[in-house]
Amino acid sequence: MHTLDIVSEHRCFDGIQRYYSHVSRSVGLPMRFSVYLPPQAEEGPVPVLFYLAGLTCTEETFMIKAGAQRFAAQHGLMLVAPDTSPRGAGIPGEDDDWDLGTGAGFYLDATQAPWSGHYRMDSYISDELFGIVTSQLPGNADRAGIFGHSMGGHGALVLAQKYRGRFQSVSAFAPIAAPTRCPWGEKAFGAYLGPDRQTWAQYDASLLMEQSQCPFPQGILIDQGLADGFLAEQLHPQAFEAACAQAQQPLILRRHDGYDHGYYFIATFMEDHMAFHAERLARSA
Amino acid sequence: MHTLDIVSEHRCFDGIQRYYSHVSRSVGLPMRFSVYLPPQAEEGPVPVLFYLAGLTCTEETFMIKAGAQRFAAQHGLMLVAPDTSPRGAGIPGEDDDWDLGTGAGFYLDATQAPWSGHYRMDSYISDELFGIVTSQLPGNADRAGIFGHSMGGHGALVLAQKYRGRFQSVSAFAPIAAPTRCPWGEKAFGAYLGPDRQTWAQYDASLLMEQSQCPFPQGILIDQGLADGFLAEQLHPQAFEAACAQAQQPLILRRHDGYDHGYYFIATFMEDHMAFHAERLARSA
Repeated sequence: MHTLDIVSEHRCFDGIQRYYSHVSRSVGLPMRFSVYLPPQAEEGPVPVLFYLAGLTCTEETFMIKAGAQRFAAQHGLMLVAPDTSPRGAGIPGEDDDWDLGTGAGFYLDATQAPWSGHYRMDSYISDELFGIVTSQLPGNADRAGIFGHSMGGHGALVLAQKYRGRFQSVSAFAPIAAPTRCPWGEKAFGAYLGPDRQTWAQYDASLLMEQSQCPFPQGILIDQGLADGFLAEQLHPQAFEAACAQAQQPLILRRHDGYDHGYYFIATFMEDHMAFHAERLARSA
Repeated sequence: MHTLDIVSEHRCFDGIQRYYSHVSRSVGLPMRFSVYLPPQAEEGPVPVLFYLAGLTCTEETFMIKAGAQRFAAQHGLMLVAPDTSPRGAGIPGEDDDWDLGTGAGFYLDATQAPWSGHYRMDSYISDELFGIVTSQLPGNADRAGIFGHSMGGHGALVLAQKYRGRFQSVSAFAPIAAPTRCPWGEKAFGAYLGPDRQTWAQYDASLLMEQSQCPFPQGILIDQGLADGFLAEQLHPQAFEAACAQAQQPLILRRHDGYDHGYYFIATFMEDHMAFHAERLARSA
């Protein structure tokens, strides 16, 4: 059992919005995460959907900006949003850049000093937090989905592939779809994983997909705004699209005129993502 | 014509979320406000709904936390959210307290030095901003509603009564319903309006209602959480309820078990408020 401290809780759409703090074993530091418990969770375990946020965000961003709780309550989905990195690891320079260190954990397990001691977001989410919400909270371990935005879209597409069978549904908003081939990814992977680019492939959604054979027969949903200022240089959805084609992986990649990279875009299409996961997690029972 | 600068804009639910900056004539300082233009505004003027936020909030709070744009797009309502006070008035101590000065304009015209020079949120909203959004932006001046939260609920209930006919629909979340009889109101009104309590009555929603005879035959909607930590000392919805009864004013005052004072509460009941205003503003044509 993990000791979980409730930081705050709020009634929301007849369910409960809750913020937790705990000492993470995988990260070796206190971590925070947020949970939305739909009203259906009062009766027993419910499907659980992990949301991974983007650079600079916290465990709060999704819960205050995305408008997901309305649909979580309708579908009976539990929502879980971890923080985006360890905080206060004491690493020199960890707060200097917005795209490395604090707020920029990239959902991987770092192998390079000084990051390797605490920057272990892959293990934290896939193992520790998954265990917590499915054993100490009413998440159904057999019905779990994952989605995210930007860096968190990368995280969702990667962790769903890396831990096949753990997540039955996956979607993303404007994901960093080929991080080994964009400046954000090259900077972060270089620091966290070192100069050997072969070790980076395990955290590149497109490279993982190229090695697969239709890992998600129920399909993957991605929404991308065409007025997204990061699209051309950082996101490369077309790389993931090509990999899915090669892997015969069904992909719904929707490109939206006029939408940018922010939460007004995310909120607009949240209803569709919630329905997408709810349908697949109901089926996976 | 007022010179309006667009600070930022974002596509949102097929409409446009926009932030403006301008030099306010009534306030005598730069002010910011946010607007959501529903898709219907591309065709011509649409009903317009003003939202007044609570203590410490800005023109952004409502637009990122309340989830209102989804319903504004459905109903074809334009949303307008001003800031909660002048900023940078240069008044000694204006940033010292969270419930006086910056972020705490209380939607009145101050009469007392040093506040009276800039703290003129009543004139700013009722006259200047109303004029801007109905002449330079596609708000229909004959179909305007107003609502708000906490200090902004006070503002909505007061301005709707003070300027009869300007706002055809009014609602509130957890309003400061009797500000002359609570610590927040006594502190603010004492500073902005001076020691003569007779001058305070024009900004007390309950006292105004006591002097009226059914000013809003289409009814007023108020939602109040019963786990709201400010309810007992600061809000006094029962005073407004009694005044409405005396004035034969139809009031729907809903008290909700377990809900607190924050935006998780507001988001939960936003759909109902948007439908309430949309129905009345359609009728008022």
